[in-house]
Amino acid sequence: MSEFKSDIEIARGANKKPIIEIGAKLGIPSEHLLPYGHDKAKVSAEYIRQVKSKSDGKLILVTAINPTPAGEGKTTTTVGLGDGLNRIGKKAMICIREASLGPNFGIKGGAAGGGYAQVVPMEDMNLHFTGDFHAITTAHNLLSALIDNHIYWGNELGIDTRRVTWRRVMDMNDRALREIVCSLGGAANGFPREAGFDITVASEVMAILCLATDLADLEKRLGDIIVGYRRDKTPVFARDLKADGAMAVLLKDAMQPNLVQTLENNPAFVHGGPFANIAHGCNSVVATTTALKIADFVVTEAGFGADLGAEKFFDIKCRKAGLKPAAAVIVATVRALKMNGGVKKEDLGTENVEAVVKGCANLGRHIENVKQFGVPAVVAINHFHSDTEAEIQAVKDFVATMGEEAILCRHWAEGSAGIEELAHKVVQLSESGASQFAPLYGDDMGLFDKIETVVKRIYRGSEAVADKSVRAQLHQWEEQGYGHLPVCMAKTQYSFSTDPNLRGAPTGHVVPIREVRLSAGAGFVVAICGEIMTMPGLPKSPSSERIFLNEQGHIEGLF
Amino acid sequence: MSEFKSDIEIARGANKKPIIEIGAKLGIPSEHLLPYGHDKAKVSAEYIRQVKSKSDGKLILVTAINPTPAGEGKTTTTVGLGDGLNRIGKKAMICIREASLGPNFGIKGGAAGGGYAQVVPMEDMNLHFTGDFHAITTAHNLLSALIDNHIYWGNELGIDTRRVTWRRVMDMNDRALREIVCSLGGAANGFPREAGFDITVASEVMAILCLATDLADLEKRLGDIIVGYRRDKTPVFARDLKADGAMAVLLKDAMQPNLVQTLENNPAFVHGGPFANIAHGCNSVVATTTALKIADFVVTEAGFGADLGAEKFFDIKCRKAGLKPAAAVIVATVRALKMNGGVKKEDLGTENVEAVVKGCANLGRHIENVKQFGVPAVVAINHFHSDTEAEIQAVKDFVATMGEEAILCRHWAEGSAGIEELAHKVVQLSESGASQFAPLYGDDMGLFDKIETVVKRIYRGSEAVADKSVRAQLHQWEEQGYGHLPVCMAKTQYSFSTDPNLRGAPTGHVVPIREVRLSAGAGFVVAICGEIMTMPGLPKSPSSERIFLNEQGHIEGLF
Repeated sequence: MSEFKSDIEIARGANKKPIIEIGAKLGIPSEHLLPYGHDKAKVSAEYIRQVKSKSDGKLILVTAINPTPAGEGKTTTTVGLGDGLNRIGKKAMICIREASLGPNFGIKGGAAGGGYAQVVPMEDMNLHFTGDFHAITTAHNLLSALIDNHIYWGNELGIDTRRVTWRRVMDMNDRALREIVCSLGGAANGFPREAGFDITVASEVMAILCLATDLADLEKRLGDIIVGYRRDKTPVFARDLKADGAMAVLLKDAMQPNLVQTLENNPAFVHGGPFANIAHGCNSVVATTTALKIADFVVTEAGFGADLGAEKFFDIKCRKAGLKPAAAVIVATVRALKMNGGVKKEDLGTENVEAVVKGCANLGRHIENVKQFGVPAVVAINHFHSDTEAEIQAVKDFVATMGEEAILCRHWAEGSAGIEELAHKVVQLSESGASQFAPLYGDDMGLFDKIETVVKRIYRGSEAVADKSVRAQLHQWEEQGYGHLPVCMAKTQYSFSTDPNLRGAPTGHVVPIREVRLSAGAGFVVAICGEIMTMPGLPKSPSSERIFLNEQGHIEGLF
Repeated sequence: MSEFKSDIEIARGANKKPIIEIGAKLGIPSEHLLPYGHDKAKVSAEYIRQVKSKSDGKLILVTAINPTPAGEGKTTTTVGLGDGLNRIGKKAMICIREASLGPNFGIKGGAAGGGYAQVVPMEDMNLHFTGDFHAITTAHNLLSALIDNHIYWGNELGIDTRRVTWRRVMDMNDRALREIVCSLGGAANGFPREAGFDITVASEVMAILCLATDLADLEKRLGDIIVGYRRDKTPVFARDLKADGAMAVLLKDAMQPNLVQTLENNPAFVHGGPFANIAHGCNSVVATTTALKIADFVVTEAGFGADLGAEKFFDIKCRKAGLKPAAAVIVATVRALKMNGGVKKEDLGTENVEAVVKGCANLGRHIENVKQFGVPAVVAINHFHSDTEAEIQAVKDFVATMGEEAILCRHWAEGSAGIEELAHKVVQLSESGASQFAPLYGDDMGLFDKIETVVKRIYRGSEAVADKSVRAQLHQWEEQGYGHLPVCMAKTQYSFSTDPNLRGAPTGHVVPIREVRLSAGAGFVVAICGEIMTMPGLPKSPSSERIFLNEQGHIEGLF
């Protein structure tokens, strides 16, 4: 165990099977697999229609404690558990999100798992993959172009150029595009106005693609997008610009889930990737619902910690798609618990049982929260080589006091062999019939009450506060018929509070709602509690400087 | 013949073969075909290396008279001739350009041929295809982001923010992005400066991808890109920003040619698509040189009329890639010749032999010009149902007076059966050994002299005129070591002159060189003679309004 291979070395050594074989294992005929190279394929819309009447497998959510710089390995555990379930003889699939290309050229690593629990081909997944994000960028920017074009040709709809809310997007970290003035240069170029770009994963089109059930639903949602407002504050929709049909055409292929494989040749859908702050942070509904038809167990994950990711998975994705999760896995690491217990990153190598115990408060809160949704949970301790026996035992003991079980998992180092115990436990929980899933709040609750419900019951804050203008905006949307929508909280992922440095399990904090945004096409109201960056920048020495093709034509430096 | 099917109806009725079979016909093993769906595939870089030592087939250029609103059918004839050569028992391939996605949502039609001489799948080819253009957009914009990021973090290279020449690109018609001010919003967003977007086909990265011989050459050229200048006017290169490696990684797959098929199941490479004004307007060198290794006849085309397209094909692409075209086909239609002879579009339906004869001056000029390059030529009259016998005979008689032959071709209506005669003639010309190809000017001629050579010998103008500042710029580039580059003329495609309304065969006109630009990575100096639009706008009622998915999930309105 003294020599570790890097993720990319392990991935390159993968014994990949032709994707046609992976599909065949699931019963997908080759004519319904649209290959992209020999190791990626989209599943045809026709096949997805054909399996709709089948019964559903069990849906397992993998979530985590609040993220820390120590890393938790949520995707790694998702992939590992999928392999583990297959190892113990179950027909299991994995559903995860696609990676955003742009951030890979800044500092971010890939999003395909790690160690011996990875999905391949990882290079493709971190670059253009099957082009879904490019299609989303294009559909989004077509709508943007149509808005300014409409204004240019006379503005029949009366769009207030100061109130165009639809920005442009690019899958790139480019801070120079955050705030721009466009249409400069004279009459031929239109009417100058303030505008800007977000990164593609922040596009409402991304959220829509991930929540739409089929192409007809996609087109309907695209039409529902609000692009801006008139001087009388009435909304202008994408439908008013006749943009919905063309946008759906651009997204036709992107709507089909992408099939790839794990290092152990088990099937995985990697599809969609909405931001986990201003959007809901889960892979696509189409991928998840299709997987449930063709596999007996489907392991999926949600962004960030359970306070944000699991809450949105339950309250937005499951509510909208009618999904009933059978069990949840909460991933923790000894290292991350130590950081939650107050240890600095540089001191993580030293045994510190006391800090582990202290940090377990964060874990405990997430266990309680998941159970509030009626979903049975198990804790996965994602093993790291520096963990000590005493530290691991401390976590197990803590979880036992809550009446639950924590299981040590060694999938990173050992693949599926290291996660059999968790797999068995997940099967037992799922098949126990214990799940009584229900969202946290009903559709008919007021929008601000929904926000406050999440703040009080999940974040354990004392109250949500908002300016009069924010409350007035929510009321207006309720009057316009958007009151039934769920809320999508945009909060720091590092704490239950809005202070990223407040680790552990704080209570009694006030959660300020600074701004609200209506994603009428996606179907949620975003409540922004703090600074939310929708267009990242690059660091001083971006990783692009170290990314190149070596003499064998292999990609170096991407991860 | 009274009922015509539309291009899309014909394309949908195509009896496509699996792309693996099309590749097998060329001898490409399936492991070297990277499929994108069942009807598109990229040819692996490894296979391209393997065939490099094989001998070359014959290269046939399809070019045309100056374009008119009547349409000439250059791509249709290229596809038809490829089918015709296969029909008469030759192993022939077609090499054409990829279509730009953005303009399809404005007014432009597709670029896959027409009638019974089409390349399929036409919907994909006019949308995302295999993602090449998205990769080019991304690589281009990564470099853009790195420039502003470098300035943000201290500008060690001393880039003059007023002299950043590298803009951003998008594959969309969006006039609002032509001229912008970026980096607004305060210190966190950088230093405000003037910037703008071009359409992706105008990107120098596109021209580079189409001229690069392999990945190493690609990376070298990317590094050579000049992104802007310092206050002392010295250039800053993409290499200085360490951008070349990451850009090559983003373009790795895009460098592999795309294999598709004609309606008659003959192979076609559709790869690359640089602008034909500020770039050289030909498909990729990799596609053409690879096709020459695996087929006995390769039919390719160049943008616009022969004054622009063929000249650049010969003087830029063939010069750089060491290609020796064996023959050229000059496409004309009776209708377009009538327009060159002064007939208005609405009067084209009426027989007018006199106008045909008058318009033949334009054709005659192009025949002379092609022969100046030492390449034997034949004229293809692309038949239109309203053409009369007398009109067709007038064209044949005119061409005969020049010692050449004009052949009537009915490939649009009849497929390969309608173009056999042309195919036989092309084989005879190619195998006659008549071609003595040489570029128009030598590498060592001065840059302005090169421009003037094209103006006088191809456009038949009296002189090229340019301000002192333009000439000084050319001198400076010569001193900096760029004097050996060919020139890339950016002129209206509608006339030999710079006046788009001056049809026929004008002489003695003055050609003003308004601006010159150095594409140091692509390897040419652009001479701009007139307004050149590098970011189109959308019309009042863009075609996007009529593009949608019908109830069968088929795309309507794209063409």
